[in-house]
Amino acid sequence: MKSANRLKSIAPFHVMDLLAKAKQMQAEGRDIIHLEVGEPDFSSPKAAIDAGIGALKRGNTHYTAATGLPELRQAISDFYLSRYKKQVSPEQIMITPGASGALQLISSLLVDVGENLLLTDPGYPCNRHFLANINGDGILVPTEAEQDFHLTPTLAKENWNDATIGALVASPSNPTGAIMSKQQIQALHKVVTDQQGCLIVDEIYHGLTYGCDAETAVDLADNVFVINSFSKYFAMTGWRLGWLVAPEWAMKDLDKLAQNLFLAPSTPAQYAALALFEPDCIAELETRRAQFSLRLNYLLPALENLGFVVPAKPQGAFYIYADISGLKHALSNDSMAFCLKLLEQTGVAITPGIDFGHQQGHHFVRFAYTADIPVLSDAVNRIATFLKS
Amino acid sequence: MKSANRLKSIAPFHVMDLLAKAKQMQAEGRDIIHLEVGEPDFSSPKAAIDAGIGALKRGNTHYTAATGLPELRQAISDFYLSRYKKQVSPEQIMITPGASGALQLISSLLVDVGENLLLTDPGYPCNRHFLANINGDGILVPTEAEQDFHLTPTLAKENWNDATIGALVASPSNPTGAIMSKQQIQALHKVVTDQQGCLIVDEIYHGLTYGCDAETAVDLADNVFVINSFSKYFAMTGWRLGWLVAPEWAMKDLDKLAQNLFLAPSTPAQYAALALFEPDCIAELETRRAQFSLRLNYLLPALENLGFVVPAKPQGAFYIYADISGLKHALSNDSMAFCLKLLEQTGVAITPGIDFGHQQGHHFVRFAYTADIPVLSDAVNRIATFLKS
Repeated sequence: MKSANRLKSIAPFHVMDLLAKAKQMQAEGRDIIHLEVGEPDFSSPKAAIDAGIGALKRGNTHYTAATGLPELRQAISDFYLSRYKKQVSPEQIMITPGASGALQLISSLLVDVGENLLLTDPGYPCNRHFLANINGDGILVPTEAEQDFHLTPTLAKENWNDATIGALVASPSNPTGAIMSKQQIQALHKVVTDQQGCLIVDEIYHGLTYGCDAETAVDLADNVFVINSFSKYFAMTGWRLGWLVAPEWAMKDLDKLAQNLFLAPSTPAQYAALALFEPDCIAELETRRAQFSLRLNYLLPALENLGFVVPAKPQGAFYIYADISGLKHALSNDSMAFCLKLLEQTGVAITPGIDFGHQQGHHFVRFAYTADIPVLSDAVNRIATFLKS
Repeated sequence: MKSANRLKSIAPFHVMDLLAKAKQMQAEGRDIIHLEVGEPDFSSPKAAIDAGIGALKRGNTHYTAATGLPELRQAISDFYLSRYKKQVSPEQIMITPGASGALQLISSLLVDVGENLLLTDPGYPCNRHFLANINGDGILVPTEAEQDFHLTPTLAKENWNDATIGALVASPSNPTGAIMSKQQIQALHKVVTDQQGCLIVDEIYHGLTYGCDAETAVDLADNVFVINSFSKYFAMTGWRLGWLVAPEWAMKDLDKLAQNLFLAPSTPAQYAALALFEPDCIAELETRRAQFSLRLNYLLPALENLGFVVPAKPQGAFYIYADISGLKHALSNDSMAFCLKLLEQTGVAITPGIDFGHQQGHHFVRFAYTADIPVLSDAVNRIATFLKS
């Protein structure tokens, strides 16, 4: 007995080994600062918790439609209108089991065996694995620090090949936190459209932008798919709920796929999510957003002072992607070894860049500022001592 | 823009059209009896609801490990010991987003492009679509009514081809409710092993067996995978939680797949599930099982009296798979037309056999006895009138 060949192209998260090590150290009594996981430290908003409890008390535990609760699709449509002033029909919004579910649906919908999507290197590691899972490919396009690690129209044109059917980008991006402007998205969309391909925009960090807003691509054209999630801005990670905005022509096939692959998204999670759009809850989320902004304003210069170089300006998500090549202990250009040594000596856990792509990942690390400023400050002091040691 | 080729091999559930029609009729004030959906009418057990509420109040809304909460894996291991007297290491148990998640993981783990699994016709329709999704195939083996529609060793041998890597069977089966005996499973396992293939046993209707127990294949050999779910016996459909028991050699790859495809199963659902194994809760579930048994004892002879022929003896799940070819209104041998006409004229919704396979599905229908006996009796009376009209 052996595993299928696709398993060779699917990597585990390197950070998982580090996380296991961190947990073991914690169990041994060490004081660990977790800046490695892509998850807000905030718990789910009280309104959502209460709505979830209400749903359970009412016995809302049966299947919903595969496309999700109609009232939640409507609530998301209303949210696009109130927040972005954009009209999106609820019929084009599909509720999914996390953004993971949306990425799976899109991969299955669009990509035939041997076909590929252009992806950014660095980028979210699962993207290429969703494609490998259905025997497609992700072309990891090495992006440039000077271009904020974005997929530029030029790079898209250069890397497009006969088997390319589209491009997948994230704004704000994981691991860089960089945002694509309206003009950048439109220019990329033009290239993709010229090639008769499609554009997929991962907007799961929307709402978590600092000093600016991110542009949504929901109404760009009928070759555009938008992925979003309740996990990040809405702090609902463990509930596993996201959504997908897709062109009309794709909805019937997406419904068919979702029926077969998932049956339906979680019912209690969907009822909980209905409460997230209430004004009081949005106000709470905006307060948290302001806290993330303060953390970024503290951590970015502090890291730069220590010699970390941050080429792509982080304006969103909760990440800083930092070049370690000028630092002591990083002479080996091995980000995993750097992260392990940092963890062992200081108890600070961060993610090695090798999780996000092949180019430059060996001399980059990602910090998630998912802790309060006093904790971040403690981490910075520990790292300072480490770098002097 | 067009969908990928795999979409041509993935069918929607035909029953969805019927369900939409039923809901529309209901909205127009018609009294509909729902015997079409594969979902217990019971709500989730109170213990699970309370545990879910407790988890939400404590803020247990963050990610768990991709393999699930260690304490839930342990609880399932303990359950195998107490209920089946079988030792299963928690390390070989993986929590999944529904049995759907487990079926996805197994398909991705085992089946390369163009390879296939033997499936039963009739059987659960999604099985072949999970395979089509990853560009594999399901060989729908026409099974015989005289053999309770099971995949026999002879049929497995006859249908095995160079691209076959294993067989997937369900016991109790959907749509028939028939159970494979220990001897039948072992004999099938021998054929599969002789071919150096693997055996996957879907045990999601375990616990819902009447007058007998079903044998679990969890400890059969290291080429055997077992799928189970909290949806049916435990009545947790909308929570989307299941599990997978896999051989040791497969666990690392399964973990890697789950990390990438799902990140993790629902956290509130996992905490809720922990309460399901408490003695009081099991007692409640056993009371419900007894009710299902009474319903079966009522409905089966009642349908047979009306002229429905039930060749495979239903002993589990909550289904009766009935041949309509001798009935009035079924002369066209079109089970979808029969179900639609029945729905329109009587308000009784059942599922056409064409959802479960290609052979004979056009003259079979599936009844789900997910309603109390007075409601079932009402349905029987309406059908009787219909058949006389």
